[in-house]
Amino acid sequence: MRIGEMSRRTGVPVPTIKYYLREGLLSPGELTSPNQARYGEAHVRRLKLIRALTDVGKLSIAAVGEVLGALDEPEQSLHHVLGVMQRSVSTNAAAGDEAAHQEAEKFLARRGWHYHPDDPSVRALVDVVVKARELGHDRFVEQLDAYADACQGIAEADLDHVLRRTEVEDVLEGVVVGTMLGDAAIAALRRLAQQAVSARRLGEV
Amino acid sequence: MRIGEMSRRTGVPVPTIKYYLREGLLSPGELTSPNQARYGEAHVRRLKLIRALTDVGKLSIAAVGEVLGALDEPEQSLHHVLGVMQRSVSTNAAAGDEAAHQEAEKFLARRGWHYHPDDPSVRALVDVVVKARELGHDRFVEQLDAYADACQGIAEADLDHVLRRTEVEDVLEGVVVGTMLGDAAIAALRRLAQQAVSARRLGEV
Repeated sequence: MRIGEMSRRTGVPVPTIKYYLREGLLSPGELTSPNQARYGEAHVRRLKLIRALTDVGKLSIAAVGEVLGALDEPEQSLHHVLGVMQRSVSTNAAAGDEAAHQEAEKFLARRGWHYHPDDPSVRALVDVVVKARELGHDRFVEQLDAYADACQGIAEADLDHVLRRTEVEDVLEGVVVGTMLGDAAIAALRRLAQQAVSARRLGEV
Repeated sequence: MRIGEMSRRTGVPVPTIKYYLREGLLSPGELTSPNQARYGEAHVRRLKLIRALTDVGKLSIAAVGEVLGALDEPEQSLHHVLGVMQRSVSTNAAAGDEAAHQEAEKFLARRGWHYHPDDPSVRALVDVVVKARELGHDRFVEQLDAYADACQGIAEADLDHVLRRTEVEDVLEGVVVGTMLGDAAIAALRRLAQQAVSARRLGEV
């Protein structure tokens, strides 16, 4: 198909597609004349993935390049690509202090959760511990075990969801969409569950 | 105490405290001379709550006024104040379409969760359903039951945390801090749990 049709099918404007081509995120089409190229289904799928990474995952073009790089490595395993992917679709993390860092590491070790030392999620967790202390809510960290139990259930459902897909690019798009939309869904459901639990435990409706 | 000491104890600058006084968020101190006033422990506690609402909860001054208004109603119940509070510390919600709205309501009814018709969390949930459809991830909504189960566990822990406190203002500050820091903690733990589950289920470390 021509670039115009690819644009119509994906909703991505032609100048944006050209930008992705220049940045190497999208491989060149097959030249049919000096200034016309033909694109296939693989291009459409890749373009949808780029769109999910940038629009939903809020990734920078450089970060998209890294994720696609991991995807195109010949020796990639699904678990490895998921890891690169997932660290890119990260929470906003600030640097925390050493004591809080050790506490978070101890917590994760106790749960038997392995993690990448540079994982932004670990930094985000440390940041929460530091902020809770600053605000004088030291006991907030006692919640973390209950949260982690709940997150284990969430993660099992997340994996079910992505592993139902068969193509690797589909799986990755599922991770981006599922991670971002999942965060929003979980935040909303948490508030609704709080109201239901509050009504029951405080004996009111 | 003088306004300067209150500023030192809470970390809130004097001009900010004066602004809260003008906006009626903080009740006037006891005048000791035409241009000097004395403040008590109730002022310090209220100031800490305003700080939690604005800094951590990202509430506007108008929203802080509403929450404090609910708190100062003579006939308030804890459940009612928690509701006003919690709707203010809301997720960002966009308006969704009617079909998605009905689907979200059916979902909540099936779980037996009562909710306020204007609850921004319901709108946020609708928004997630709409976005998933737009992105061609219709099956994402099948996740919501697993997420809701997990959120029920989270909400029980959240209520345990706030009900451990005795003063109403402490409870509310616990809700704000717990809701905002909890979202960050849960997002981070979800990613770490995904990695642990992915390692186990895909048979790699």
